[in-house]
Amino acid sequence: MKIPEKENPANAAKRATRRTRAVKNPPQEKSEKPAAERAKRGAKSAQRGDRSVKIVFLGGVGEIGKNMTAIECGGDIIIIDAGAIFPTEETPGFDLVVPDITYLLENSRKIRGLILTHGHEDHIGGVPYLLNELKIPVIGTKLTLALVDNKLREHRINDVTMRVVEPGQNLKLGCFNVRFVNVNHSIAGSLALAVGTPQGVIFHSGDFKIDLTPVAGSPIDLRAISDIGASGVLLYMGESTNIERAGYTMSETVVSATLERLFSENARRRIIIATFASNVHRLQQIFELAVKYRRKVALSGRSMLNVVDAAEKIGELTIPSDVLVDVSRIKNMRDSEIVIVSTGSQGEPMSALTRMANGDNPAVTVGENDTVIISASPIPGNEKFIYRVIDNLYRKGADVVYESLQNVHVSGHACREEHKIIHGLLKPKYFIPVHGEYRHLKKHAQLAEELGMPAERIFIPDIGNRIEITARGGIRRLEDVTSGSRLIDGEGIEDEKASVVIEDRRQLAAEGLFIVSVAVSGGEVIGEPAINSRGFVFDFHRDYNKEMREVITRAIAGYDLARGSVDELKRVIKRSLKNYIYKKTKQSPMIVPVVVEL
Amino acid sequence: MKIPEKENPANAAKRATRRTRAVKNPPQEKSEKPAAERAKRGAKSAQRGDRSVKIVFLGGVGEIGKNMTAIECGGDIIIIDAGAIFPTEETPGFDLVVPDITYLLENSRKIRGLILTHGHEDHIGGVPYLLNELKIPVIGTKLTLALVDNKLREHRINDVTMRVVEPGQNLKLGCFNVRFVNVNHSIAGSLALAVGTPQGVIFHSGDFKIDLTPVAGSPIDLRAISDIGASGVLLYMGESTNIERAGYTMSETVVSATLERLFSENARRRIIIATFASNVHRLQQIFELAVKYRRKVALSGRSMLNVVDAAEKIGELTIPSDVLVDVSRIKNMRDSEIVIVSTGSQGEPMSALTRMANGDNPAVTVGENDTVIISASPIPGNEKFIYRVIDNLYRKGADVVYESLQNVHVSGHACREEHKIIHGLLKPKYFIPVHGEYRHLKKHAQLAEELGMPAERIFIPDIGNRIEITARGGIRRLEDVTSGSRLIDGEGIEDEKASVVIEDRRQLAAEGLFIVSVAVSGGEVIGEPAINSRGFVFDFHRDYNKEMREVITRAIAGYDLARGSVDELKRVIKRSLKNYIYKKTKQSPMIVPVVVEL
Repeated sequence: MKIPEKENPANAAKRATRRTRAVKNPPQEKSEKPAAERAKRGAKSAQRGDRSVKIVFLGGVGEIGKNMTAIECGGDIIIIDAGAIFPTEETPGFDLVVPDITYLLENSRKIRGLILTHGHEDHIGGVPYLLNELKIPVIGTKLTLALVDNKLREHRINDVTMRVVEPGQNLKLGCFNVRFVNVNHSIAGSLALAVGTPQGVIFHSGDFKIDLTPVAGSPIDLRAISDIGASGVLLYMGESTNIERAGYTMSETVVSATLERLFSENARRRIIIATFASNVHRLQQIFELAVKYRRKVALSGRSMLNVVDAAEKIGELTIPSDVLVDVSRIKNMRDSEIVIVSTGSQGEPMSALTRMANGDNPAVTVGENDTVIISASPIPGNEKFIYRVIDNLYRKGADVVYESLQNVHVSGHACREEHKIIHGLLKPKYFIPVHGEYRHLKKHAQLAEELGMPAERIFIPDIGNRIEITARGGIRRLEDVTSGSRLIDGEGIEDEKASVVIEDRRQLAAEGLFIVSVAVSGGEVIGEPAINSRGFVFDFHRDYNKEMREVITRAIAGYDLARGSVDELKRVIKRSLKNYIYKKTKQSPMIVPVVVEL
Repeated sequence: MKIPEKENPANAAKRATRRTRAVKNPPQEKSEKPAAERAKRGAKSAQRGDRSVKIVFLGGVGEIGKNMTAIECGGDIIIIDAGAIFPTEETPGFDLVVPDITYLLENSRKIRGLILTHGHEDHIGGVPYLLNELKIPVIGTKLTLALVDNKLREHRINDVTMRVVEPGQNLKLGCFNVRFVNVNHSIAGSLALAVGTPQGVIFHSGDFKIDLTPVAGSPIDLRAISDIGASGVLLYMGESTNIERAGYTMSETVVSATLERLFSENARRRIIIATFASNVHRLQQIFELAVKYRRKVALSGRSMLNVVDAAEKIGELTIPSDVLVDVSRIKNMRDSEIVIVSTGSQGEPMSALTRMANGDNPAVTVGENDTVIISASPIPGNEKFIYRVIDNLYRKGADVVYESLQNVHVSGHACREEHKIIHGLLKPKYFIPVHGEYRHLKKHAQLAEELGMPAERIFIPDIGNRIEITARGGIRRLEDVTSGSRLIDGEGIEDEKASVVIEDRRQLAAEGLFIVSVAVSGGEVIGEPAINSRGFVFDFHRDYNKEMREVITRAIAGYDLARGSVDELKRVIKRSLKNYIYKKTKQSPMIVPVVVEL
């Protein structure tokens, strides 16, 4: 993920100012607006009387991850999802990236609730950071809220109002009337939303696929979607993750069949399955196969234990009696009697599977009689991690089964033909593609056009965009709002000036650094400069240390602090060494001048 | 790519010592060896009289990239390929990674030549760094050597003996008799090698696929491979890149058909095609389509110009007259009259295509009437770069055609069925899979077993492995040799102590740093410590600066340099601040203590 340029705090501040100005001088309305309605509005009462609907895109558009969208109308705001994304090499050393919620903080009194479409990290990972600053109710299905609850306990956040909803149910939140629609996805309890607004219905797909033969739970509620479409949909916001894939996503039952074959073929071997802990339907299949093939199940990895525990409590997962054993007990069992279900399907460095592959998992030692099944596909960017784990498992003699070899995983996202069905059932007036990088959104927009929607009724959003939608006037783009990424580092320290830090880290990583320390006393430099380097070509420093000292000493010789300043002295040091190193090596390491004042 | 642990100079030195010892005390021969032959050998004359063949794996095994293998017999060594690999985030800031050639330098007098199987970077990228230290002849086809020649001129390396060979030809190099065999690949002039040795024939596949309808050049010489197989092959070393893919790789003519359809469908639009400059057969197709559809061709990107120039000179590429125009002239031409052929198919940051996507290519401004065809697939690890380019091209309004949408690229590597054919024709006695990460080598080994080869006749190599192979005794692993990665940084500065630098850079990138400077005079610390930080959470430094100074001041209060040392003082400073910061933040930034001695 690229940190959008708006990340720059200076720009953000500039835009925020612009936005504030925009509120003071509300943008010109389109002339189609009834004159009576226009007359109602003064600069002051604009917000109260305004029944137009606004949508603010705070994450998950132009990127895959950290989904967050707000829908506003008059004095009410609802938030859909509060996701996180894992850091990349462009944000080295940070633990998590969540959306910048400045806009929500500025409008906190209007917020009627946070609706979570399902319990994946890119939809709920930002919840604790949001709830740390906003006291709002959280709404979702049982499993989603159970997973959120785990997070809140870890972050010691209490007194949160959680509202469990079920598909088919309606919920009034301010002027919005939200209907929850069951969809299939790679986690149980996934929802689409039909949001009734004063301008008409906004349908948000959440993440979905069409699976008419799911292994558990109900198929996507196509009838409800059809009925909602029949009553008229103003706007469809549809996810776009798999829009480049032709045809249909396979049903979860395909995985079931493959897993059963693997259980049968590996009757004498130990089986280790890595999968997403949150894919409780897949866990359910594994439990059932274990019973059928007379194996016990051992869970490995903290999040696997947490999720299984949470899912069983709320009845999403049924664990047959006597099948679960503690992973510490497996050493005394035969290989043919055990299946280990583990975290680490993305090759996460500290996960149970990665530690098995590296030979430092205290509970599980992988060897030649192990068949490891990786029942997941790599999230883009994780390929090298998971392939390294696979290589290491092979080196230990294990057999490894992964997606490029067999159907041990299916996607949770709709492919093109499925998208066509949803568009066809909803027949929306306007369309906004969401959840995807720009090319995905563009392809989804093209698909809508192919299905007959005029291009001017489609809007491709970017993070920070704010649009107005009215039944008569259609989509109109307003001023952008403050938006971007919020980087979470270490023990809850959140860095809002992260761009400076990131820039420094990048330069340090790419070029290394030199530190020049000089002492000043009584207004002049005393002694020799001390030069230290880190992360720079080693021999250069040794060979040229003397010459560098001379260069700096010459540059600052006779520098009079009484006339200049410490900052200027630092600049002189920096410039002289920078030029010298660049001339010698064509490199630009970071140079940190340090002045010790005595 | 993971820098193998052997990268650590200390380990390398250890191993090198071990290796030297091994030469002094040659390892026990297997007892199958005829007694007469064993008797011939003394500890001293081992090398001269030894007709066993050794193979040393210096790169391209357990990794994709920087291929390099040496074959030894008695006093002769030939080297197959000298590739490079691009750095990853694990080697930040370096320009190129090439194999460690310590072993070759130690045996330089034996080397009879460097044979290049073809002209891709992972086979020739390391040639300049090798020739800087070893004066040896370089052998390859015309195109391969033309591409090497470009490199040598850039590096100002002269007086290199270059020997052009053709498929079907034989070449004697010391005791080796090398026969060159034509194969198909995504670059013209690709070779497999049948190396006659005193122990039998070693067949090395190079990179290949089976294309019986190539768009230019000849199909792979299956008859020659069959004949070589019929005469008996001791050992097959086969590439493994696509071993996970079932079936066959499509013929290059498929791309031809897709490109022609795109030319026809985009008759009124400007066409921009990004592809590998070295894929001259694809360039040839584009030139021919340009003539047919009455377009001129403009080349964009330095390597595109260089390669087209080199390939035309040697007759590998035939440019129809009047078709080529300078890219500066296209502004005056109609969109329908031009096709731009550009570098950047991997999203390389400074490439022509990336600059078009970013809007800073001075010659080409991309807009709504452009169709951009990316005729390449992302090399693993490059996905995010090329997808960012695609996103930006879409943002500029262009239409983009890439592999996941249409057949605008085919792989240059054989899939499983093709591998089976080559194994079947060669019927080797022994097999060593090469060119692949560990899982690829393992899968290729499994394929050989499925075809009937006993597991004990297969060896899966790792970088640094040295094996002996004899007709009677088979494969025997000897002591490893010094091996690993050599990092090339900036203007030819090569850092052999790179692991320290890399470790520093990683820590800097992940955690940032603190610099603590103190002045000492007359054996004691004077004044206050100065603290600077870079790449660390900004607010922490501001909020806790005073407390940090106090912590350090307390730690070094009364420190007596006369009894201790500057190094110990530094350790005290480091430890005190490290503990403090860790306690406060659970982070471990690098801490650099600087002592200015007055």
